[in-house]
Amino acid sequence: MSSHARTVRDYWRLADERDWDGFAALFTADVVYDMPQTRERIRGRDAFVQFNAEYPGDWHLSIRRLVADDSSASTLVDFVVGGEAMTGLSFFSFAEDGSIAMIEDYWPEPYDPPAGREHLVERY
Amino acid sequence: MSSHARTVRDYWRLADERDWDGFAALFTADVVYDMPQTRERIRGRDAFVQFNAEYPGDWHLSIRRLVADDSSASTLVDFVVGGEAMTGLSFFSFAEDGSIAMIEDYWPEPYDPPAGREHLVERY
Repeated sequence: MSSHARTVRDYWRLADERDWDGFAALFTADVVYDMPQTRERIRGRDAFVQFNAEYPGDWHLSIRRLVADDSSASTLVDFVVGGEAMTGLSFFSFAEDGSIAMIEDYWPEPYDPPAGREHLVERY
Repeated sequence: MSSHARTVRDYWRLADERDWDGFAALFTADVVYDMPQTRERIRGRDAFVQFNAEYPGDWHLSIRRLVADDSSASTLVDFVVGGEAMTGLSFFSFAEDGSIAMIEDYWPEPYDPPAGREHLVERY
């Protein structure tokens, strides 16, 4: 497992365990967290850790996909909160010392399939 | 650049160029394409190429993020169709010969930020 792969596994494990001291140690001091769907941005390790610690609900997650190379990583997580299942997609960039410097997060929602492609698709 | 990185670069370039013969050569015959948001699935290279060739609009795209390791890859693409900008997130798995065997695609939409985190976020 690459070093970045290990770091993003730790990221999700420590969040799921609410180990906020361990979690905080993964980031650069000026880490940037972007949520492009809402155009929200959080700047800095302290605010980002607080955001996660304050995130409401008894949420839990597991990693379903993880890709990591020498410069970046991405994950797909199954996230459950209050009986609701969500999918989280994240892209990570790293500083030279391996700390997480940037995260970009997406939370796609279900929608109705558009008409016109029924001849090619099945539903599951 | 890893072999899988090259393959997913070709995937998006050939789609953008409408080179459907070149595009088709990237997949296993029984490739599976999943769109979890609509719970739609397409099975097989021929149906998947046809789905892309029939996709409506003068769409174009560019790769913004790409991660690839020895077993999988993921991309974030900026997709434009009819003046509308969308973001596409894809995870790829590969057969032993390097052909694309599975694709899982997400198209997250904008939404309003939930209340209660204004003290930590900025909008952009």
